[in-house]
Amino acid sequence: MGVIEGEKDKVLIIGATGYLGRRLVKASMDLGHPTFVLYRPEVASDAEKVQMLIGFKMQGATLLQGSLDDHNSLVTALRQVDVVVSAVAGNHLRHAVLEQLKLIEAIKEVGTIKRFLPSEFGMDVDRMEHAIPPGAYVFTDKRVVRRAIEKANIPYTYISANCCAGYFLAALAQLGHFMPPTDHALIYGDGDKKCIWVDEDDMATYAMMAVDDPRALNKTLYLRPRGNILTQMEVVHTWEKIIGKELKKTFISQDEWLSSIDKVAPPLQIGVAHLYQIFYHGDLEFEVEGPHGVDSNDLFPNHKYVTAEAYLKRFA
Amino acid sequence: MGVIEGEKDKVLIIGATGYLGRRLVKASMDLGHPTFVLYRPEVASDAEKVQMLIGFKMQGATLLQGSLDDHNSLVTALRQVDVVVSAVAGNHLRHAVLEQLKLIEAIKEVGTIKRFLPSEFGMDVDRMEHAIPPGAYVFTDKRVVRRAIEKANIPYTYISANCCAGYFLAALAQLGHFMPPTDHALIYGDGDKKCIWVDEDDMATYAMMAVDDPRALNKTLYLRPRGNILTQMEVVHTWEKIIGKELKKTFISQDEWLSSIDKVAPPLQIGVAHLYQIFYHGDLEFEVEGPHGVDSNDLFPNHKYVTAEAYLKRFA
Repeated sequence: MGVIEGEKDKVLIIGATGYLGRRLVKASMDLGHPTFVLYRPEVASDAEKVQMLIGFKMQGATLLQGSLDDHNSLVTALRQVDVVVSAVAGNHLRHAVLEQLKLIEAIKEVGTIKRFLPSEFGMDVDRMEHAIPPGAYVFTDKRVVRRAIEKANIPYTYISANCCAGYFLAALAQLGHFMPPTDHALIYGDGDKKCIWVDEDDMATYAMMAVDDPRALNKTLYLRPRGNILTQMEVVHTWEKIIGKELKKTFISQDEWLSSIDKVAPPLQIGVAHLYQIFYHGDLEFEVEGPHGVDSNDLFPNHKYVTAEAYLKRFA
Repeated sequence: MGVIEGEKDKVLIIGATGYLGRRLVKASMDLGHPTFVLYRPEVASDAEKVQMLIGFKMQGATLLQGSLDDHNSLVTALRQVDVVVSAVAGNHLRHAVLEQLKLIEAIKEVGTIKRFLPSEFGMDVDRMEHAIPPGAYVFTDKRVVRRAIEKANIPYTYISANCCAGYFLAALAQLGHFMPPTDHALIYGDGDKKCIWVDEDDMATYAMMAVDDPRALNKTLYLRPRGNILTQMEVVHTWEKIIGKELKKTFISQDEWLSSIDKVAPPLQIGVAHLYQIFYHGDLEFEVEGPHGVDSNDLFPNHKYVTAEAYLKRFA
């Protein structure tokens, strides 16, 4: 798109002040992309978000006022960029995944977007049709978005980022905790199902490396840092080695775990369901298959990702 | 305290993940202080705060688990440091000012703390006995803390930081907004009362420069960046010049403003009251007087603070 040979694609980030969004902005700028950030006018009433946006601007990003609810603002923003990366909330508490259908309409109208990365950054939702409620709802909505993208012939990459280190690894997958326990850990089943633990800054870097990579065009890119494909028990042992102490362990059966779903608050129910999928049903235990799947190890073998051990050492 | 000549005082920050706290941690480390951060065990259930704490640690801070409700944890933490800087919440929504009385008890018991900066960072509360409710409550509680410090003979510095740029300057003092308006501004009275607008990173830097400065011992340090002592109208004109456009202005009388207090939600009522004190009652229009007051311009004339104009230019 750029007039200068070798100029980097211009990237628009949606949901930039969120948990992953702010990391995507940083990764985009670190990789040299002219970076644009959409912000809603309502953000003016949130001092912390305003300051984060101004921080992006001071680091070189261009702020564009607009909203998914304002079609013209989207079209105006899209006309200035080559690539769109969305990180609208798709988490347990706020959930705006389907709002992206409005973005897809605008991308279709503009017709010049070279790559769209919808808000994914979790499990491969096309492999999760069997998922149990209420964990399944976010997967269902992300599938709706995928199908709309494909129907509109929008060039895409789906980032299947697997498990956020801060939410899963930091507490050895203890529900509702984000620091590693030093006394006791709950172990799901025998703790022997493989999980893939990925640092959030790495997620953002992989995603931004993919936006202009033809090998990721119309593919699902699976982030699978080779050394971070580990069972819960392997992660617990890694932590025990770091602190030089053995944790007490309570092994919880699948039935016990599933019955706990009715005993926790609704946002945690989604957590219970997702942990079930990963640690009992083993939904991350598969090999990447072509032609529509690509593996981060194949595409970006030289990226030095944060290992699970290095991540946990930060807490010691 | 250090065994090596010239070693910097060790600083403990309380409330480190808060709005000012995180800036105090950074300023402390930037100025070369060995920096300690107290964190509550409950923080483990807040992924974002955990990550902020780990960020501090990766930059060199030492994390100490403890709580104002756990006396022994405080004593243990205090025995490792020379200086204590508190930034517990004293804002509109959460208010933990009086919790610091527990900290004062522990400081008294330990007896080796060379300087304590309680959570202040606003107007000089000893000049605000006339303030109207509900804005007055936070001033009253801060006075209680001051008197407890003095009674315990704890060496102190009170930082009267005046008005946070992000909360006051960013929106030209428009209540509940934190980005400058481009069409219309509400002007309090004639907009001619002097206010002092201070960037939050500057607040933190001034505070941390003061912690080991004998000239600030048992004094109130007033942060008054000389070029930032400006009326609301002067600030509005600065912004108009930056954007090359005149704003429509609605001038609101004191009676109108005060009557609005019953029409807004409780947190904003405190904002209405504070804006009244500054922009109608003119409570920042005074000269610093000795022997207990010191002026940041006298103590730190070489610090390059962020000017109001430079701050507002970030938004253009």
